[in-house]
Amino acid sequence: MDTLLYPQALLKLIEEFQKLPGIGPKSAQRIAFHIIKQNENNVKNLYKSIIDAKEVIKLCSICCNISTQEKCNICSNINRDKENICVVSEASDIIAIEKTKEFFGTYHVLHGLISPIEGIGPDKLKIKELISRINSETKEIILAISPSVEGETTTLYLKKLIKPLNVKVTRIAFGIPVGSELEYSDTITLAKAIEGRREI
Amino acid sequence: MDTLLYPQALLKLIEEFQKLPGIGPKSAQRIAFHIIKQNENNVKNLYKSIIDAKEVIKLCSICCNISTQEKCNICSNINRDKENICVVSEASDIIAIEKTKEFFGTYHVLHGLISPIEGIGPDKLKIKELISRINSETKEIILAISPSVEGETTTLYLKKLIKPLNVKVTRIAFGIPVGSELEYSDTITLAKAIEGRREI
Repeated sequence: MDTLLYPQALLKLIEEFQKLPGIGPKSAQRIAFHIIKQNENNVKNLYKSIIDAKEVIKLCSICCNISTQEKCNICSNINRDKENICVVSEASDIIAIEKTKEFFGTYHVLHGLISPIEGIGPDKLKIKELISRINSETKEIILAISPSVEGETTTLYLKKLIKPLNVKVTRIAFGIPVGSELEYSDTITLAKAIEGRREI
Repeated sequence: MDTLLYPQALLKLIEEFQKLPGIGPKSAQRIAFHIIKQNENNVKNLYKSIIDAKEVIKLCSICCNISTQEKCNICSNINRDKENICVVSEASDIIAIEKTKEFFGTYHVLHGLISPIEGIGPDKLKIKELISRINSETKEIILAISPSVEGETTTLYLKKLIKPLNVKVTRIAFGIPVGSELEYSDTITLAKAIEGRREI
């Protein structure tokens, strides 16, 4: 890209879009040109939506879920039991768990996973906030974190941190998905399924 | 996506990002969550860059290239010959041609190609602007449009429109790229290369 031939404002726009997750230099350039060609109103809708979302949406002061109030819907619901806290990586994971209608406790959103390669240490996640929530009422911390390298690291880290607080730490089960054929399962999933076997 | 569980402002943000080229529902959601987690300053940089670019960058009144002035660098350069106009699809194509240092005329940016499938008719492109530029001084219109279905349609359309104006219409050559092996060329490129053969 010949920087001399592009106006500074366009370069800045491309640069800012490149910072967004999953957008490389080519996509950023394509989006920037798209924005310049759009009419005033469409562009206004785009940047207004960013300003509005940023203004209106905060993190719940208890569980760090996204929320328009100080406390999110779940934390402010008196029918949810506060003794069980389900720890997830992203706020979007809550939606997936809520859909199962199997969990009636509260959540805690870490906003990421520990990843030394990407420079994400425990201090960059909402782990302090989780620890400070744990009190004598807390019965169980359920880790609903995927079994990736980062997920395993985070799980291990949290287990070591929470165990000394005399709270039960569990982890959701990994195994063969319901409805899938055993023979087509990948080795790691199958290994997890055997490891997690239960008496029936 | 459970719309009931997401704040309205977040849904709006996801919706707006989904309108950008190459961004699907999953990417839009990921970007929206990323924006919410960012600090105030980073988000301000993003939306400011959109506002600034939109405010500062216009289309050149002559060739529709992007420009911060009423006339772009190339159109306002007295050393560029105004007799030859090179027609391109996007402003970014100009950069590619400028790098060759082989062309000293002026450009015209169509801002797209005719595509009935996507509902882009000739009226949505800067074709009127091109036709109104052509005058007794104009010697040659060089079509630098790629040989895709949309490119071929646009080329044919422009040829029919410009020929009656008694202006020479040419098209850049398509063929085997320099440095590549003939045997690995795709059939269509090879066919274009044979069709475009010249006496030596």
